[in-house]
Amino acid sequence: MGSEQRFEETIQQIEGLDEKAMTLARARQDRLTKPPGALGRLEELSVQLAGITGTLACDLQRKVVIVMVGDHGVVRQSVSAYPQEVTAQMVANFLRGGAAINVLARHTGSRVVVVDIGVVEDLPPHPGLTISKVARGTRDFTREPAMSREQAHAAIGVGLEVVEQEFQRGLDLVATGDMGIGNTTASSALVAVFTGEPPERVTGRGTGITEDGWRHKVQVVRAALALHHADAGDPVDVLARLGGLEIAGLVGVMLGAAARRVPVVVDGFISGAAALAAAAIAPRVKEYFIASHRSVEPGHQVALDRLGIKPLLDLDLRLGEGTGAVLAFPIIEAAAKLLNEMATFDEAGVSEADTGPRRGPD
Amino acid sequence: MGSEQRFEETIQQIEGLDEKAMTLARARQDRLTKPPGALGRLEELSVQLAGITGTLACDLQRKVVIVMVGDHGVVRQSVSAYPQEVTAQMVANFLRGGAAINVLARHTGSRVVVVDIGVVEDLPPHPGLTISKVARGTRDFTREPAMSREQAHAAIGVGLEVVEQEFQRGLDLVATGDMGIGNTTASSALVAVFTGEPPERVTGRGTGITEDGWRHKVQVVRAALALHHADAGDPVDVLARLGGLEIAGLVGVMLGAAARRVPVVVDGFISGAAALAAAAIAPRVKEYFIASHRSVEPGHQVALDRLGIKPLLDLDLRLGEGTGAVLAFPIIEAAAKLLNEMATFDEAGVSEADTGPRRGPD
Repeated sequence: MGSEQRFEETIQQIEGLDEKAMTLARARQDRLTKPPGALGRLEELSVQLAGITGTLACDLQRKVVIVMVGDHGVVRQSVSAYPQEVTAQMVANFLRGGAAINVLARHTGSRVVVVDIGVVEDLPPHPGLTISKVARGTRDFTREPAMSREQAHAAIGVGLEVVEQEFQRGLDLVATGDMGIGNTTASSALVAVFTGEPPERVTGRGTGITEDGWRHKVQVVRAALALHHADAGDPVDVLARLGGLEIAGLVGVMLGAAARRVPVVVDGFISGAAALAAAAIAPRVKEYFIASHRSVEPGHQVALDRLGIKPLLDLDLRLGEGTGAVLAFPIIEAAAKLLNEMATFDEAGVSEADTGPRRGPD
Repeated sequence: MGSEQRFEETIQQIEGLDEKAMTLARARQDRLTKPPGALGRLEELSVQLAGITGTLACDLQRKVVIVMVGDHGVVRQSVSAYPQEVTAQMVANFLRGGAAINVLARHTGSRVVVVDIGVVEDLPPHPGLTISKVARGTRDFTREPAMSREQAHAAIGVGLEVVEQEFQRGLDLVATGDMGIGNTTASSALVAVFTGEPPERVTGRGTGITEDGWRHKVQVVRAALALHHADAGDPVDVLARLGGLEIAGLVGVMLGAAARRVPVVVDGFISGAAALAAAAIAPRVKEYFIASHRSVEPGHQVALDRLGIKPLLDLDLRLGEGTGAVLAFPIIEAAAKLLNEMATFDEAGVSEADTGPRRGPD
């Protein structure tokens, strides 16, 4: 099946949430031995999980983080403090288990899937590495489109394939991760197009670049936007012109997971940019998103606001790799378990509130 | 040993954090394969954990939540929507494993220790229940002191004993939990005294009481403050007059854990009130606190601000039992593991930033 055909079919498969399961989940929350609403956002989350999975007894044991890795032509414009070879070096670190994402995946009992979707260098084969290079990095989008439309579709197709493979292995919860020197610049450009916000509002110095470095980066984003005049109504074209291979790959992961009714735990800024693109392609995909954390990058909050999703964590992270998403896994699992495992008032023989349904214990 | 003697000795044992371990932890954070600072608050947390435990390789496997349970005479003033018998009923729910705290403790691999420090009813013996009743509930503090000074000391002593017992069993991380119909009213009174804020700023309707119910509750707190003229400089007296048996018990847990250099994960509003009392008794105890979450109760933020600690989670919880604290356990463990298990730049052969020590990958 061609990339575009698979893409169109996947979009068709994304359905709305299961309203009946959500109604049952809400009713059960109000019967559990606690004041109604006392578990706050964990209650909302349990209702969303019921809506996504279609069951109140959802089991989130099989957790995966898909780390898409690609290089960026725009690094020629000196937008990053780290040299391009760090992209490949970090892949080696992922495969040896020494990166932050590995530590967090071990901690939470999750699988790490690393995908070379567009690293410049040739990476040696490794059982933990999926090599699906669409190109050796993108082109410099200050001069030409980062990718052709075909490459963007191919990269989305890689995401669809990888998430389908993981689904076949067993997948209850998927986190989106990224690695690619230069990819906050691409993400700023994407967020600017999809939200209409000016470059200076969506471009960050979160990693610690100087004031001058930040001004230069804003200028690079502004120049790219001026060159391409990208139309947010054609999200694949936006991705092709201003995105990255790993970002397009994550769009595929998001769409593919939603089509399979798997909750998507969205990491930080890069994933937020991918989420905006995915939502522009298939608006219903948003219902499958769980925002894991608020990144230090200012464009991330802009993306979250536009998506209408609220992060679970706010811990000043700005690492990528899927670290914020995997850190949120235990909270998401907790929400599901509370709904499933807590006793109801009847089961526990606990008295309810004296007056009115919405008063609670003091 | 008498309660007061043990209390004084414990206070003497609380030392400052290990500055050398903290310096080493900071230096190691800057060598790990990530831009410096990119793990945000997890980095600060790992430094604090090193300072508390004296090691960079701290292992937080043995986690305990101590749920102190007591009744409150002030319920006679109709401050709660739930009847007093719910306190005892919830203990039965804890012991059967059906409460939220049980679900979260199983999820995070933690032990639950339930302590009857002052329930009105007689509770049947159970292997999971420590019966250390100091009194059958407090007295109504709108008419007289909730406890005698001796009772407050005895309750603190119970906390010291319980945490010491858990330390002997193996204790790397302790969470503070509470149950007691009426205890947000007591906590509001305590927070008002320790922070000097007016009752209406520290009294909540988070559990959903009506506007009228809230006004009445504020009036009850105001009347109690006017009656007792408690002096924040004598924190045991404040606890005795306006506190609760379970709140005093938690003060003991906090002091005892700090004396043993065990990090204290502070739950919500009730624990925040206890934390203010503990810090008034022994200011250094604050260095051992990890604020787990921000409760919906407005007085909780006031308490956190005064303590100078920032919560890890903000999920609109208002349940107590230690639920927010145990929910934060996986994040705290993650912080320790990241410091211990991530590869350094040298180990991983990853290139560092081109320019300046505080720029990072894009």
